[in-house]
Amino acid sequence: MALASLAANWSPPPFRPVLFLIGGMLVPLAAMMLAPAAADALVGNRDWQAFVTASAVTGLCGGGVLYLCRGGMTDALSIRQAFLLTPLAWLSVAFFGSLPLYFSNYGPLADSFTNAFFESMSGLTTTGSTVVVGLDRAPPGVLLWRALLQWMGGIGIIATAIAILPALGVGGMQLFRTESSDRSEKVMPRVQQIAVALAAVYLGLTALCGLLYWAAGMTPFDAAAHSFTTIATGGYSTSDASLANWDSPAIHWIATFFMISGAIPFVLYVQLVRGQGDLFRNSQVRTFIVFLAVVVAALTIWLVASGRYGVADAARHAAFNVVSIVTTTGYATTDYSLWGNAAVGLFFGLTFIGGCNGSTAGGMKIFRLQIMAIMLRTHFLQLIYSRGVFTRTYAGRLLTDDVVTSVVVFFSLFFSLYGVLTIALMAFDLDFLTSASAAVTSLANVGPGLGPIIGPAGNFSALPDGAKWLLSFGMLVGRLELFTVLILFMPQFWRG
Amino acid sequence: MALASLAANWSPPPFRPVLFLIGGMLVPLAAMMLAPAAADALVGNRDWQAFVTASAVTGLCGGGVLYLCRGGMTDALSIRQAFLLTPLAWLSVAFFGSLPLYFSNYGPLADSFTNAFFESMSGLTTTGSTVVVGLDRAPPGVLLWRALLQWMGGIGIIATAIAILPALGVGGMQLFRTESSDRSEKVMPRVQQIAVALAAVYLGLTALCGLLYWAAGMTPFDAAAHSFTTIATGGYSTSDASLANWDSPAIHWIATFFMISGAIPFVLYVQLVRGQGDLFRNSQVRTFIVFLAVVVAALTIWLVASGRYGVADAARHAAFNVVSIVTTTGYATTDYSLWGNAAVGLFFGLTFIGGCNGSTAGGMKIFRLQIMAIMLRTHFLQLIYSRGVFTRTYAGRLLTDDVVTSVVVFFSLFFSLYGVLTIALMAFDLDFLTSASAAVTSLANVGPGLGPIIGPAGNFSALPDGAKWLLSFGMLVGRLELFTVLILFMPQFWRG
Repeated sequence: MALASLAANWSPPPFRPVLFLIGGMLVPLAAMMLAPAAADALVGNRDWQAFVTASAVTGLCGGGVLYLCRGGMTDALSIRQAFLLTPLAWLSVAFFGSLPLYFSNYGPLADSFTNAFFESMSGLTTTGSTVVVGLDRAPPGVLLWRALLQWMGGIGIIATAIAILPALGVGGMQLFRTESSDRSEKVMPRVQQIAVALAAVYLGLTALCGLLYWAAGMTPFDAAAHSFTTIATGGYSTSDASLANWDSPAIHWIATFFMISGAIPFVLYVQLVRGQGDLFRNSQVRTFIVFLAVVVAALTIWLVASGRYGVADAARHAAFNVVSIVTTTGYATTDYSLWGNAAVGLFFGLTFIGGCNGSTAGGMKIFRLQIMAIMLRTHFLQLIYSRGVFTRTYAGRLLTDDVVTSVVVFFSLFFSLYGVLTIALMAFDLDFLTSASAAVTSLANVGPGLGPIIGPAGNFSALPDGAKWLLSFGMLVGRLELFTVLILFMPQFWRG
Repeated sequence: MALASLAANWSPPPFRPVLFLIGGMLVPLAAMMLAPAAADALVGNRDWQAFVTASAVTGLCGGGVLYLCRGGMTDALSIRQAFLLTPLAWLSVAFFGSLPLYFSNYGPLADSFTNAFFESMSGLTTTGSTVVVGLDRAPPGVLLWRALLQWMGGIGIIATAIAILPALGVGGMQLFRTESSDRSEKVMPRVQQIAVALAAVYLGLTALCGLLYWAAGMTPFDAAAHSFTTIATGGYSTSDASLANWDSPAIHWIATFFMISGAIPFVLYVQLVRGQGDLFRNSQVRTFIVFLAVVVAALTIWLVASGRYGVADAARHAAFNVVSIVTTTGYATTDYSLWGNAAVGLFFGLTFIGGCNGSTAGGMKIFRLQIMAIMLRTHFLQLIYSRGVFTRTYAGRLLTDDVVTSVVVFFSLFFSLYGVLTIALMAFDLDFLTSASAAVTSLANVGPGLGPIIGPAGNFSALPDGAKWLLSFGMLVGRLELFTVLILFMPQFWRG
């Protein structure tokens, strides 16, 4: 629909810079596809042809657009161009990223473009919902490409959240004009330097995570694939059983640690490396860690008290699965939905929360929950002291009405979309728990839903095609903080 | 908890006027209990003693408080006193209203104070969730008292929404400082006159509804009981099968018409009778009617197309059940949850909506949905035209930031409470559909939930006591527009 409107309103606005930038993203994407091609070629799987073909198509399209729109990049993007670029870039990469899966000989993805696109969008948005059954016997190229999509999506959203969203002022992100962009500009004056530093941190954490997985007993391939999807808080695994396939507390605790790492603002790591700042003095990080600790402790006690596990296993399963959902990763070490309705309720609620802003995590995000709490408190105080004047501060800085309104509107919009998506999914005759948990897991980019179909032990393959497209849309909308996508549906956006 | 805090902070604030007013409400409540006493005495049921005893207790308590706090009513109430009065008055009436049910010989209510209180609170808040199985064989006193509780609750919430809530400024109700209080004050200068006119309209509509039910074939008793609970959009019936017990299209259409009547601002009727104003020029009413028409038409077409009913029956069941849920009444003519997941999704979504402000209906209410839509639209426009200035108007008047913020905060709070209540109910090991639908049906004061336990064909008797208390609290919080109750949990409310 966005694309249809785009075509209809094609000539007037200067969209060439937008296309130029998208073309510029497709070329490295095409190059990236040669990695799974090599992996398949090494083991003699003929899928290498699919990856090479897709790489050629992607590279040609990207190069062609670059050529046609050359000279289009003159100045900084306008707000409108930035709004157009963001969803269009993500949509384009998801589309071209689905081509090798669709061209491959791997049935679950090659037999249906819907499946290939769903898997690609779920990967790129670091959601991690999968339509594949039989991952354990899947060829290495497909497995590596799924992991790489998440890895690229992870660094992609960090870049988007730092470079673009604060300028657009969606969902209270204007708060981070200072905290991330400006403040870090004081540390390192030039944008390129930030980008290089962030990429170095991202690579470094991935490498460390992968080495530890390997040391703890994974094969090098599994270690690499999981390191990509752990840091990206994505959740794609190389086994249908997810991390339950590795019956190793060490591996589970490594994953838990690095999922948390992936859900912390990456700018803070850059500052940390440079000896500036302190992770735990950051209000968002502190709240995030305390919240996780409280929930994990409570769940551990409950699991021990209800006789389900001993203390060590209870702590491991509680920490792993709570962290997996709150960081919006989506791995599982066990089917926690079998722990009863109370656990289902807890995990359902956790699916909304999300990690910190400026990380690879999705969800509503910790800073928004903090601002909501501050706002509710002052609203109640205002009702009591109707003539009082209450200033709202967050992390030591004054909260403007602008930011508070954006956050509250984000909240309302998130819940409204969740409701509409739930009802739309039920129109496909899906049950309530499946529909509601699918709606929130896609919007929050978590991965698994709840219930027997799409729960931690299930997957999305059985859903009708229409539901898969709806959920793909939900993932994109959620990943780009709602407004950035929905604004394209406003007729005013397309007018002069 | 509110009562405990009250006791602990007893001496400083001048709460005497609050208690005086509550005492003044208990005396007519005691008098009202003599009606079911008479009904039981007429048929020779010994429950008349329970009603007389409860009446005596209530009357003595009310009279005693009136005597002890005499002279306390000097001036108008302060904001703080009004905040205290509202939930305390509703809680007191619900408590004393539960006494005759608890004292009675009617097992389902006499055997458990939890059940009696739940039934009383559900009645008074015009929710209509019931714990009684076997209504068709229940004695007339209990049936009449349930209906009267809803009838009193209906006029009670109209009075609260007109006289108190706009002054408190909760959830955007300050919008109605002009539309209802001020504007109607121009029409009729004195508060007493409004009260008399509203009471006359309420009585008149009830009588008309009852006469039509009787003419259409109900017994005089059933007609009276249902007229009370129809106008109050309450939903208590004298049969377990609800209105499905009367297999009469005429009765169903009468109910549909009067449920809608009960969900329209009653001040508009007063103006209409005086020849001023036009129901359908009111923005809230027009949106409400158009919304109902669209949903009913779509559902009718679907019911016919899916071969479930012929056109006449499809229209009747669609209109009745959609109107029943949206007006937050809660009657049913059939178990619509058997129409499949799509219907369950639709009815779940409808449970949130609610009727018009200033009526007997609950829910989020039409005017809030209108303001949310206006706010979302200008928020998107602001993102596109970052330097544009957008004025927001509603019903031809400028929407202040104050009102918009209150409405958005109401939305966020409603959804947050819904989420917390859902998870809390699941902690009692209730399934997701039961918990989620119970949470919203109590907060929106609708009545039935969804699913096999508390769906339109079930009831709340099987829920654990803790869940019943949680839901009773939810009904009160929802009925009093959230803030009015929750503010009592702020420590600041109790400080000097």
